[in-house]
Amino acid sequence: MQHTAYTIGIDIGGTNTNWGIVSREGRILHTGHLPTRTADDPVVFFEALHHQIEPVLRQYSRSDIHGIGIGAPQSNYRTGLMMNAANMPWKGIVPIREIAETVFRLPVQVTNDANAAAIGEMTYGAAKGMRDFIVVTLGTGLGSGIVSNRQLLYGHNGMAGELGHTIVIRAGRTCGCGRKGCLETYVSATGIVRTALELLEQEPDETAPKQAGTLRNRYRKDKNIQAHQIHEAALSGDPLALRTFRDTGDILGLALANTIAITEPEAIILFGGLAKAGALLFEPVAKSMEANLLDCYRNRVKLMPSGLQEREASVLGSAALGWLS
Amino acid sequence: MQHTAYTIGIDIGGTNTNWGIVSREGRILHTGHLPTRTADDPVVFFEALHHQIEPVLRQYSRSDIHGIGIGAPQSNYRTGLMMNAANMPWKGIVPIREIAETVFRLPVQVTNDANAAAIGEMTYGAAKGMRDFIVVTLGTGLGSGIVSNRQLLYGHNGMAGELGHTIVIRAGRTCGCGRKGCLETYVSATGIVRTALELLEQEPDETAPKQAGTLRNRYRKDKNIQAHQIHEAALSGDPLALRTFRDTGDILGLALANTIAITEPEAIILFGGLAKAGALLFEPVAKSMEANLLDCYRNRVKLMPSGLQEREASVLGSAALGWLS
Repeated sequence: MQHTAYTIGIDIGGTNTNWGIVSREGRILHTGHLPTRTADDPVVFFEALHHQIEPVLRQYSRSDIHGIGIGAPQSNYRTGLMMNAANMPWKGIVPIREIAETVFRLPVQVTNDANAAAIGEMTYGAAKGMRDFIVVTLGTGLGSGIVSNRQLLYGHNGMAGELGHTIVIRAGRTCGCGRKGCLETYVSATGIVRTALELLEQEPDETAPKQAGTLRNRYRKDKNIQAHQIHEAALSGDPLALRTFRDTGDILGLALANTIAITEPEAIILFGGLAKAGALLFEPVAKSMEANLLDCYRNRVKLMPSGLQEREASVLGSAALGWLS
Repeated sequence: MQHTAYTIGIDIGGTNTNWGIVSREGRILHTGHLPTRTADDPVVFFEALHHQIEPVLRQYSRSDIHGIGIGAPQSNYRTGLMMNAANMPWKGIVPIREIAETVFRLPVQVTNDANAAAIGEMTYGAAKGMRDFIVVTLGTGLGSGIVSNRQLLYGHNGMAGELGHTIVIRAGRTCGCGRKGCLETYVSATGIVRTALELLEQEPDETAPKQAGTLRNRYRKDKNIQAHQIHEAALSGDPLALRTFRDTGDILGLALANTIAITEPEAIILFGGLAKAGALLFEPVAKSMEANLLDCYRNRVKLMPSGLQEREASVLGSAALGWLS
């Protein structure tokens, strides 16, 4: 029986770091944020963060704080290290668990964003009470957190769950990782933009209709299409934008069907920016997933949106991890 | 502390059922077999099996027998049911755990062949002491048993580990499951035969060399090529047979690389008939696996043969499961 009542959840992103003091029931009692680029030195950054949180912490009895959970890119639960994270001000291998423990004098656990999201869904969100599920995070890239038998599947070195780097199309699109055909080159904010641009470039401009609000019209003015613009165009019925969502969902559905054959989850939760497209994404994903599933799995695996409010999700996920510290 | 000293391992195959009484250390003290088609009724079959084992069991104190483990096709650890197994005399849904418990009056656990192989490798074989590994069984089909955090990954309904039915080539070869492009249509005894036949049919017969011992020469006489003949031809240097192994290994290597990105095992153990081809298979598999792995996994995952003697493996795997009963 634990008597501590709160954890601190810290979500470190490339731009912003959000934190919150969270009750055992998942209520966020205090929250704040600090630009991650406040300091190029991670020790200086954590000292600034401590300086911001400490006055709030004084309102609590220190013995009521169970620990700190940190969700951060490329960060490893087993080692407590952040490994060469792209888009971060801190380069190389950063011992963030050790730094945070020294600065805050509290027990700390760290993991990557997708694993934190999975722990958040299990503790406070759509996966409450589930034993086996997968969270797929759809942001700039594609991440995944796999829970099996109520435990996060970390793998031998804490590096499991890189669904975004499974190869779905051999000799396919070039990926930031240096290989070709990775799932995240098709299914992510950047992936869906690449698909839209490919479709726009395939169709000869002259024969395309000149209709306001379409991706085609936007592309004529500015080749720099963004994911939210594809979403908006699809909502207004633009066939090319709708085709872009169908193609994206088709590939994700196949990848999910293959993942189900390996880990057989009860549910797959789609989380993050692209998942906000709702039925535009979920319908083609579900259709392709079911079509590609082995009989014994068909109509048995739930495809669900996150059960956490977007604004709170990352802090709740990290805070839930704090209970494991 | 357990004081029981033995389990009974029963491996049920389409043709033969092998059993053994096995010590905690993995020594097979008694062994026997019974044709599975002895009876069309599974209750009658288990009674015949009991009739065969009972006289041997009398040499032991009943309290020394911890339980029975059964490895059988399409059999589910969670439910104890055999579900519509192909090539078995017993049709439909067979409650084999319940039948065996009633007949033997001992606790029984059942699982499928690939999971039994994984438990066997973990308890007595190549995976002793490992926390995270995968066994891939290469027989008529392709099965897999995944161990994560020292536990078999069963999934939500005990149906995880169907690596053979992940789709590796969209709109690829027709599979017995009714879909297209499943891994086992390429990588299995039947899959490698299909690859050899495709290569033989692509190459015009007239221009092919007329050399004794080659698959081409065998094919000229009899179109019914078998997996062991491809192995023999490859050993004697037949380029078409070597190409067949390379193509097979290439596809398996990609599928393993994708599986590593999901579960990150310490090792992958190749088990069963096709794995006996040794370097002919292991070399192209390792080459393709490494080429398709994300940087952070490269040269870190061991590719290994089974650590169990073929003749004993299936009984040892089932016996190891018996300790969980």
